[in-house]
Amino acid sequence: MKVLVTGAAGFIASNLIPRLLARGDEVAGIDNFFLGKREYLPQHPRFDFRELDLLDRDAVAALFEETRPERVWHLAANSDISYGTKYTDFDLKGGTLVTYNVLEAMRLGQTREIVFSSSGAVYGEPSVMPTPEDYGPILPISLYAASKVACETLITAYVHNYDLRAWIFRFGNIVGPNPTHGVIYDFIHKIQRDPSRLEVLGNGTQAKPYVHVDDCLDGIEFGIANAHEDVNYFNLAVEDQTSVREITDWTLEAMGIDRSSIDVKYGDAPRGWRGDVAQVQLDTKKMTRLGWKPRLTSQEAVQKAIGEIVGQLT
Amino acid sequence: MKVLVTGAAGFIASNLIPRLLARGDEVAGIDNFFLGKREYLPQHPRFDFRELDLLDRDAVAALFEETRPERVWHLAANSDISYGTKYTDFDLKGGTLVTYNVLEAMRLGQTREIVFSSSGAVYGEPSVMPTPEDYGPILPISLYAASKVACETLITAYVHNYDLRAWIFRFGNIVGPNPTHGVIYDFIHKIQRDPSRLEVLGNGTQAKPYVHVDDCLDGIEFGIANAHEDVNYFNLAVEDQTSVREITDWTLEAMGIDRSSIDVKYGDAPRGWRGDVAQVQLDTKKMTRLGWKPRLTSQEAVQKAIGEIVGQLT
Repeated sequence: MKVLVTGAAGFIASNLIPRLLARGDEVAGIDNFFLGKREYLPQHPRFDFRELDLLDRDAVAALFEETRPERVWHLAANSDISYGTKYTDFDLKGGTLVTYNVLEAMRLGQTREIVFSSSGAVYGEPSVMPTPEDYGPILPISLYAASKVACETLITAYVHNYDLRAWIFRFGNIVGPNPTHGVIYDFIHKIQRDPSRLEVLGNGTQAKPYVHVDDCLDGIEFGIANAHEDVNYFNLAVEDQTSVREITDWTLEAMGIDRSSIDVKYGDAPRGWRGDVAQVQLDTKKMTRLGWKPRLTSQEAVQKAIGEIVGQLT
Repeated sequence: MKVLVTGAAGFIASNLIPRLLARGDEVAGIDNFFLGKREYLPQHPRFDFRELDLLDRDAVAALFEETRPERVWHLAANSDISYGTKYTDFDLKGGTLVTYNVLEAMRLGQTREIVFSSSGAVYGEPSVMPTPEDYGPILPISLYAASKVACETLITAYVHNYDLRAWIFRFGNIVGPNPTHGVIYDFIHKIQRDPSRLEVLGNGTQAKPYVHVDDCLDGIEFGIANAHEDVNYFNLAVEDQTSVREITDWTLEAMGIDRSSIDVKYGDAPRGWRGDVAQVQLDTKKMTRLGWKPRLTSQEAVQKAIGEIVGQLT
């Protein structure tokens, strides 16, 4: 199958693309290297990479016209929520406008299928936990999440009006090799800069479901194969949560750092930053009913990912 | 109070502004006359009108800095849903980007309060009718509704991150004097162009709750005075519905047109156009619990509005 992957040099795409190539897909990839890393791109005769900014609507449309993908994996996104609070048009451009450009290129180039990486952050601070997919009202608290909702609704409107098909996955926190961001990545970089101290955003009680990227990709592929509505939408998460305190302890341990040699400073706030949803539990029954379960718990996913990331970055 | 009204020359704003002036507000108004009509603007010493395109972010920010409104009535919007399906960036620009510009100008100019006209279309084709405000999942079927959701979520994120306060009203169909669009307006114009025939979009069974603009504005003012959350969101509608067939009959009657002299042609489809939500019932209990009820039923609102609009346009 001919597919196109946006955010190709990013964390999730760089784990996805080798799978797509292994099953015989012809893969076009796009990235602007804002977060993505050139070294995460595979070399493969069936992989065609283009450095391109998705904000360039005409270039995106031209690429779709040229490559005629049957399916888009639209994984490009800002993944730094606090950055989007500082620069208020960051998610609007890098999320909403970019997704519009992708959908418009699909319409013009007659690409029918889109896989979209959304986020459990769309639910804001919900009154129901674990939060199911049909939860309302949708009152997100970050510009990142607002943009994810905007993207989802652009997708559902395009599906209805232009006969597309969509699979939307609202992720928990995804972890694994080839990171470009995230708490484990940040801790390692901070410690590498100054091994005597680690400042942690928030008081460390923030707790979320962490999913290993291998499970995440298994889940997406299972969802695509088994969910056949025009708009298919799923929470993609695990049942348990991991706290930032646990991640701190396990990361220090994996790096072989003696706790007496480092001053770990937690913040006072229950959330890491404004717009951070500190307590996340996503209801995973919809994927379970479809027949899929993650192999790793949140704790197992985090511990495995810490090993992988420490191995890669240190 | 110093207020700023966007879409000032439009249908709802032109009914609102005389009320604001009557209660002593100092009112700045913006419109680009895309849908709004210059003759709908009042002449008043406390009304300061600026012709301005809300897409011009710097001009909007400068205006907020200059006029320092305490509250924004953000009523500017594309109200032609089918137009937004033809020109796919129409609602993205005229809804989402414009709302971002208003919110950003509020942040920079330290305006704290926003009143926003959303739509019952955000619910798409819901499985629960009448549809309550906390309905999920949010799967809109038009780019118009997608943009309304995008605006709502931008607002909730701005409220959380920059300490604003918002009142979001999801309207049924609003009718009354000073129309710029809508089914009654369209029928009259079609008949004026060719009195021998009237082509109706859809098979006429489409049925929605129609609210008279006076009730709508009463409801909004009641909501602002009595709802004190950071984000306040309400359906603003009536309990009953009116069908397009009824509106057709009543409009012809009000125009004094003999049914034997006109060929009324209904379409075949149960919806008026792609993206049209043909059957709308909004749960109005949240406003009722707050203590507000509309004075007119849908039938009364439509009949009153037909009289007003026929009087104005013929």
